[in-house]
Amino acid sequence: MSTTQTINLKNRPKGKPELTDFDFTNSAIPELKDGEVLLKTKYVSVDPYLRGRMSDAPSYIPPFVLNEPVSSGVIAEVLASKDANFSEGDFVSGMLKWKETQVAKTNGLIKVDSNKAPLSAYLGILGMTGLTAYLGLTEIGRPKKGETLLVSGAAGAVGSIVGQIGKILGLHVVGIAGTDEKVEMLKSEFGFDEGINYKTTKDMSEAIEKACPHGVDVYFDNVGGEISDAVLFNINKFSRTINCGAISVYNDTTPPKSISVQPFLVKNSSSMQGFIIGDFADKHQEGIKQLAEWLQEGKLKYTETIQEGFENIPQAFLDLFEGKNKGKMVVKL
Amino acid sequence: MSTTQTINLKNRPKGKPELTDFDFTNSAIPELKDGEVLLKTKYVSVDPYLRGRMSDAPSYIPPFVLNEPVSSGVIAEVLASKDANFSEGDFVSGMLKWKETQVAKTNGLIKVDSNKAPLSAYLGILGMTGLTAYLGLTEIGRPKKGETLLVSGAAGAVGSIVGQIGKILGLHVVGIAGTDEKVEMLKSEFGFDEGINYKTTKDMSEAIEKACPHGVDVYFDNVGGEISDAVLFNINKFSRTINCGAISVYNDTTPPKSISVQPFLVKNSSSMQGFIIGDFADKHQEGIKQLAEWLQEGKLKYTETIQEGFENIPQAFLDLFEGKNKGKMVVKL
Repeated sequence: MSTTQTINLKNRPKGKPELTDFDFTNSAIPELKDGEVLLKTKYVSVDPYLRGRMSDAPSYIPPFVLNEPVSSGVIAEVLASKDANFSEGDFVSGMLKWKETQVAKTNGLIKVDSNKAPLSAYLGILGMTGLTAYLGLTEIGRPKKGETLLVSGAAGAVGSIVGQIGKILGLHVVGIAGTDEKVEMLKSEFGFDEGINYKTTKDMSEAIEKACPHGVDVYFDNVGGEISDAVLFNINKFSRTINCGAISVYNDTTPPKSISVQPFLVKNSSSMQGFIIGDFADKHQEGIKQLAEWLQEGKLKYTETIQEGFENIPQAFLDLFEGKNKGKMVVKL
Repeated sequence: MSTTQTINLKNRPKGKPELTDFDFTNSAIPELKDGEVLLKTKYVSVDPYLRGRMSDAPSYIPPFVLNEPVSSGVIAEVLASKDANFSEGDFVSGMLKWKETQVAKTNGLIKVDSNKAPLSAYLGILGMTGLTAYLGLTEIGRPKKGETLLVSGAAGAVGSIVGQIGKILGLHVVGIAGTDEKVEMLKSEFGFDEGINYKTTKDMSEAIEKACPHGVDVYFDNVGGEISDAVLFNINKFSRTINCGAISVYNDTTPPKSISVQPFLVKNSSSMQGFIIGDFADKHQEGIKQLAEWLQEGKLKYTETIQEGFENIPQAFLDLFEGKNKGKMVVKL
């Protein structure tokens, strides 16, 4: 029986995750049974939401088990198959373990076409990332042409897609990011109307007011924390906030404090709504179709930060919290 | 030309309003013109939201003008009329000035029937208060039979109606109030399943967990602040918070801080939504009809705190922030 390298969760991170929270082991590759495929990992997705699964606080996604493999979105090649629908050489996408080689049940796997788009795109713009941007913005944000869309974490995987979809839908789009280079990229690469570097801006509320002269109708929030505090002072009557993530506070060990949102929501008849992509499972197919269409028409661009090497997966995950990625962060094996 | 006593806003309150922020003057009663009525004030509604109109911070309700009369919901008797639809002796409801006698345009006035319900009810359960409870709960809360409804400010005008409607709709209803007497009243008078006295409870999160063993699906929030912080730890997946008010922080002079809601909303796919009753103008008639029906069937009770005397209107308003009212606070002239 052959073995494969595996990355396990060794400790539940306290605050910011560290390399020592992960552990490399060798584990056996079991025999292939009916309805299974043997897979070789090609690309691994690292995402901020994985931080949540590393805690054992009660949640609706079960936490990772200690000393068991971490899992995330993975693109893999079929090396051997005991399912007539999958053949050697096929590429598949699925929630898979951080292993170089693994046996997986075929239900839950989706075949992806490397001729239609680069394989890594199926972890990003044509995968969970793209759907999160598209369905969060359209289903919760319900933007109307001419409205103002503000995006935090705008240079990130989801944020950069949100902004582009905003432009396709005819919105005034403003992005917040953490370096001048990223802000420049928002405008030159992704067509945002305005960008704000929150690290060099003293008065964020004022900067938002300037960039959003008609106020904020839709706020796509990837970060929470102080940036979102500043947005409150600029929301319009009936504004909708899409709570996609709160990366700025995910590593806090006690519940972080922010400006109370309640008076702002009451005064402006405004809403905030959190979601995970699974909430809209019935819209995934339609969403991927729309995203693929826009991608083909050249209306959507995407940026990836590709790290190389199985051994670098934990570091790539850690880098997310330092903002080292532009767009979707993936690890290529 | 005769004159009438008038209450003006003298100062914009800093923090908690004080009696000295108001000012009694005599003002002239103008001649009656076509489309106007001469009104004698019978009941004046005092409400927490008026605090917002006393500030000049940007808002979608225009602020009160300094040295001009304050206005709120008022029930008045027609003394003279230059509109064929209104006769001497009719009672009307409308947004009117804090004056003993006044001339008002008839558009915006609604005739009310003192035979169907006591006059003061039209400021409460059959007025803005009842509509706020009914439309907030049904339109934003969208409760389903068997779910758990938590109400803060539960012994207040809106909260006590919300809880009763919750019971009519088949919910497990828990109320939070500030005295043992109020908590007892929630259960014995209004049929709440459980009540929590937040002033004597050390660990609110734990108390909510105990009173809501299946978690909180709908949170009707009248108060904001620390009580709402504690609720966050108990919300269910897909929970809906109705942000009706934030009385606990209305008098704060700097933006108050609370536990960041974003991570809780993301983790639970939960929403928060503020509103004012004007947002649902197209549902007001239907709402009043439903409330009157339930009232007639004996399914809804209401409590009023009635203060007496025109000169006591400012003090009655101040008493709201001390929780001195049970149910709707009105002043009878």
